[in-house]
Amino acid sequence: MTTDFRDLSERLPGWVEAYRAYAAEGGVATYIPELAHAPQRALGITLHHRSGTTVSAGDADLPFTLQSISKVFTLLLALMDRGERAVFEKVGMEPTGDVFNSMLKLELVQPGKPFNPLINAGAIVVSSLLLGDSPEEKSQRILRFVRELAGDDGPAFNEDVYRSEAETANRNRSLAYFLKDNKVLDEDVEPTLDVYFRQCAIEVTCAQVARMGLVLANDGVDPATGRELVPRRFVRIAKSFMVTCGMYNASGEFAIQVGIPAKSGVSGGILALVPGELGIGLIGPALNDKGNSIAGVHLLKLLSERYDWSLF
Amino acid sequence: MTTDFRDLSERLPGWVEAYRAYAAEGGVATYIPELAHAPQRALGITLHHRSGTTVSAGDADLPFTLQSISKVFTLLLALMDRGERAVFEKVGMEPTGDVFNSMLKLELVQPGKPFNPLINAGAIVVSSLLLGDSPEEKSQRILRFVRELAGDDGPAFNEDVYRSEAETANRNRSLAYFLKDNKVLDEDVEPTLDVYFRQCAIEVTCAQVARMGLVLANDGVDPATGRELVPRRFVRIAKSFMVTCGMYNASGEFAIQVGIPAKSGVSGGILALVPGELGIGLIGPALNDKGNSIAGVHLLKLLSERYDWSLF
Amino acid sequence: MTTDFRDLSERLPGWVEAYRAYAAEGGVATYIPELAHAPQRALGITLHHRSGTTVSAGDADLPFTLQSISKVFTLLLALMDRGERAVFEKVGMEPTGDVFNSMLKLELVQPGKPFNPLINAGAIVVSSLLLGDSPEEKSQRILRFVRELAGDDGPAFNEDVYRSEAETANRNRSLAYFLKDNKVLDEDVEPTLDVYFRQCAIEVTCAQVARMGLVLANDGVDPATGRELVPRRFVRIAKSFMVTCGMYNASGEFAIQVGIPAKSGVSGGILALVPGELGIGLIGPALNDKGNSIAGVHLLKLLSERYDWSLF
Amino acid sequence: MTTDFRDLSERLPGWVEAYRAYAAEGGVATYIPELAHAPQRALGITLHHRSGTTVSAGDADLPFTLQSISKVFTLLLALMDRGERAVFEKVGMEPTGDVFNSMLKLELVQPGKPFNPLINAGAIVVSSLLLGDSPEEKSQRILRFVRELAGDDGPAFNEDVYRSEAETANRNRSLAYFLKDNKVLDEDVEPTLDVYFRQCAIEVTCAQVARMGLVLANDGVDPATGRELVPRRFVRIAKSFMVTCGMYNASGEFAIQVGIPAKSGVSGGILALVPGELGIGLIGPALNDKGNSIAGVHLLKLLSERYDWSLF
Repeated sequence: MTTDFRDLSERLPGWVEAYRAYAAEGGVATYIPELAHAPQRALGITLHHRSGTTVSAGDADLPFTLQSISKVFTLLLALMDRGERAVFEKVGMEPTGDVFNSMLKLELVQPGKPFNPLINAGAIVVSSLLLGDSPEEKSQRILRFVRELAGDDGPAFNEDVYRSEAETANRNRSLAYFLKDNKVLDEDVEPTLDVYFRQCAIEVTCAQVARMGLVLANDGVDPATGRELVPRRFVRIAKSFMVTCGMYNASGEFAIQVGIPAKSGVSGGILALVPGELGIGLIGPALNDKGNSIAGVHLLKLLSERYDWSLF
Repeated sequence: MTTDFRDLSERLPGWVEAYRAYAAEGGVATYIPELAHAPQRALGITLHHRSGTTVSAGDADLPFTLQSISKVFTLLLALMDRGERAVFEKVGMEPTGDVFNSMLKLELVQPGKPFNPLINAGAIVVSSLLLGDSPEEKSQRILRFVRELAGDDGPAFNEDVYRSEAETANRNRSLAYFLKDNKVLDEDVEPTLDVYFRQCAIEVTCAQVARMGLVLANDGVDPATGRELVPRRFVRIAKSFMVTCGMYNASGEFAIQVGIPAKSGVSGGILALVPGELGIGLIGPALNDKGNSIAGVHLLKLLSERYDWSLF
Repeated sequence: MTTDFRDLSERLPGWVEAYRAYAAEGGVATYIPELAHAPQRALGITLHHRSGTTVSAGDADLPFTLQSISKVFTLLLALMDRGERAVFEKVGMEPTGDVFNSMLKLELVQPGKPFNPLINAGAIVVSSLLLGDSPEEKSQRILRFVRELAGDDGPAFNEDVYRSEAETANRNRSLAYFLKDNKVLDEDVEPTLDVYFRQCAIEVTCAQVARMGLVLANDGVDPATGRELVPRRFVRIAKSFMVTCGMYNASGEFAIQVGIPAKSGVSGGILALVPGELGIGLIGPALNDKGNSIAGVHLLKLLSERYDWSLF
Repeated sequence: MTTDFRDLSERLPGWVEAYRAYAAEGGVATYIPELAHAPQRALGITLHHRSGTTVSAGDADLPFTLQSISKVFTLLLALMDRGERAVFEKVGMEPTGDVFNSMLKLELVQPGKPFNPLINAGAIVVSSLLLGDSPEEKSQRILRFVRELAGDDGPAFNEDVYRSEAETANRNRSLAYFLKDNKVLDEDVEPTLDVYFRQCAIEVTCAQVARMGLVLANDGVDPATGRELVPRRFVRIAKSFMVTCGMYNASGEFAIQVGIPAKSGVSGGILALVPGELGIGLIGPALNDKGNSIAGVHLLKLLSERYDWSLF
């Protein structure tokens, strides 16, 4: 299962140009004003091999915010902070089949805890579990962890996106108060949401995301230093969730069509990885009807088929 | 359809004593600490006839808070403030079959507006529609309206209950933010909830509630002064809702077994009325599994059968 | 609360002609081929006063099938056959807020029995409770009961509609097997559905339905003979359900706008009544989005307002 | 990722004996009488390596019926019969988070097609797509396919279980009629269910199931003959579904704790596989609350951890 990087570097620019066309069939997220400004036709990707080689194409330098991609990293941090048992007392392990911000199962399925940490309800609970004396401290810890995985101090909070999230995210407030009422969320709502909004607003590039993916592909070990940044067990948990729930309620289809661990965000970003081999960062702001980068999913499908990436 | 008040005044004390026993099968609401202090076996009732005659029995002097009974009065006030069209743009006319604080239909049934004004979601929206420059002003207008219908300046905010509600009502916050996200609630959440919590915390006695019921039984006309306090059309709307949705998701059964317009509250209070004839105020803090005063419902059934009150 | 029949007989023809226009905003039911043939613009009504006076207008002679209107009569018959306790062990008393053929609450709300006898699930269970050794015998008993209430041997099974129902009613089969699995339906599915399809296919005219409504308005007593055809208690139960659940999930709005017991069918028929006074039969095949005769509902609203019929 | 078969064959008998104890925490399925007779404490397993080596322990010879495990094979056969496009026009690719026989999403999520082929609704549709002029022919084709994958003519219909299924499966009838009404199921209900009940009633042993799993682990190629029994693409699809939806609504947890493609049945059977390496057949009739063999899941977790099987 080795990817031919020579072939890849030759062909990738052409593929990216060709696949921009898919953007026309999707639409940029508009739920917060800042996201609506993203260039509809942008498409960029970086692949970072364990050997150190990287290949980029298209708008790989376009900065974007992590949004839901951040849920993977707060899950890892919460597991490291609190341990597996404490985290899974508060959040389940199952895909839902519902949209990412659904509240149905919180009301319908006892004991009313979120089904998994990659839907909004679950991610909010996970953020509440992070160690830190204040929302600022928790947010800074997330940012430091992201920078550490990225091997780069570039990632930073985009204050405009953060404020935009915080002002408009009434559905997330609704989720959080429901969780509070269900006694799943122990912390106060607004400080918890403050952490959550900040983690969503961490701005990154494809190269940084690819490097983070590579650490996961490498079972949590920094490929440059050989240092374990995340215990292997927790990386396994994260990768499992990425396969079963990483691409919203199109995760099953993505497992069939692409077959690698991935997590998307409403910014059009995607974190993906080929275990043991490489990490991927991708940006393509136009989304399909499930909320995933439309051109991005098509491009990953092409790459997975050509280089035989699927786990299955 | 005339109630024999002589017979009633003779028998009522005995019935009330006998029906206290039902309290043992129910339980006092515990969701806010203040309500949990209510005396489990209390049962009191006042009936106020259009002629001016009143009959009371049991713990009719026990003060209690309106809780959901207040939803009838804020509905009337909103209709008077804004008119029928404006109110029903924001809230529907249908019973739900779900529990009073359910969010299912807000997510499942487009356009996500509350099904009726007597479930929590609907009542919160109704409160947001009241005229007034501040939560304080709105709350004072509700209180004045309640006093006017009661013909008594006794009703007042119970500050302990109000604070208790405000501190613990996370499910209501969740509902309100969901409504905000659905663009059904135009006002800010916390000021709206402040009005809502205050209206729930208006403390009354059976006599006051019976007098309010009498005004509705009298098509909105103050029986003492002959002055129209509420337009007849709006009273009709309120009575219709009381029949189809007034007793939580036991309204259908109550329509069959008792057959008169009524609205219950989690304090164990019930407002009821026999159209054209009399108003009823009742308190019995022990609730059945649907949230209605368990002894109260049994007592009203007895009275309805004996005096042939059912509309049906 | 007396209706001026002189005024009514003068004005009714003009109103009916004017209200035909509403048909353009609705549509004839198409779920079974036979219903789709109904004349879109038809509108007919008969009112039958307790005194014996009747007034008809428009297409009052157009035959139509009872469809869901039959649910009122099988409920009455089941109550007379089995008693209140046996019936309500199998079916609830609450409106649902869901569409008439919904299965959600059967799965979501334990113990999975239908919420009320006027939704399909409930009506199927009610039909299963009727006495009779075979579907034929049960069906004949229903027909006889309908004829008795109509005071007319005219009502008969429309065999084409019956066959059409039986062939296409897969959603009803699905409901029935679900009920069977929930152990709410004790009888076999197909014989039970055979009874149900037949009762829906009883063909009537407005005059016959008006006469049936009059018996209910008269508390179960045949106004011609003075004989009690249905115990008053069961009539009360039926009228309560007609108010809370009779017009599908527009029952709440109908209670506010019209305020009388009524039951509609997908044929565009409506049975209604003014307690103590008169019965109404109406046909208007074009339906609104809730499944009720669109012109019919508007006409009943007009009549209720003019003659002050509302119970509320 | 190679399993040490010497270590395995030494330790497996001891592990199986020790893990029988888990059966006490679960319960044998009782929904059909035949399943209720299974021995509660039984536990058996066979592992079949690509090299030809097999290891068995415990009650590996206990015959059991495939039940839901058959869904994997009818999916493969339908893909081979009809192609990917035709199959996925009728059934989706997403996990649901609901119980295996839930109907909620059929009503709530348009266009009302089953979310995936491993829940009952999806499997019924898949069975309807199989080529064959009669239920008998379709059933025989399934059986031949199972025997071919098992490399053994042993698998056969258990007629008692088949009749037991057919008589009691009202929930499946309900599902099928719902699908028929949604126009997702084109075939008649009873013949389709006949195929479905027969496939569930195919009786096998651990060795046979392990051999079937091995063919999937070997990308569809018979390891003995080198012949492609199933196209690799379809095997990939099946393996993806086994990971995302194979263990009912505990699939997410199984992905984390065990991390290999697997499918369980209500008989307590499990089909599992380690891609590229080996197939597993397991029987342990006592089920956990999600419907999976309770001892079986624990045993697979132990094996996966010891031999590092997880894909993640």
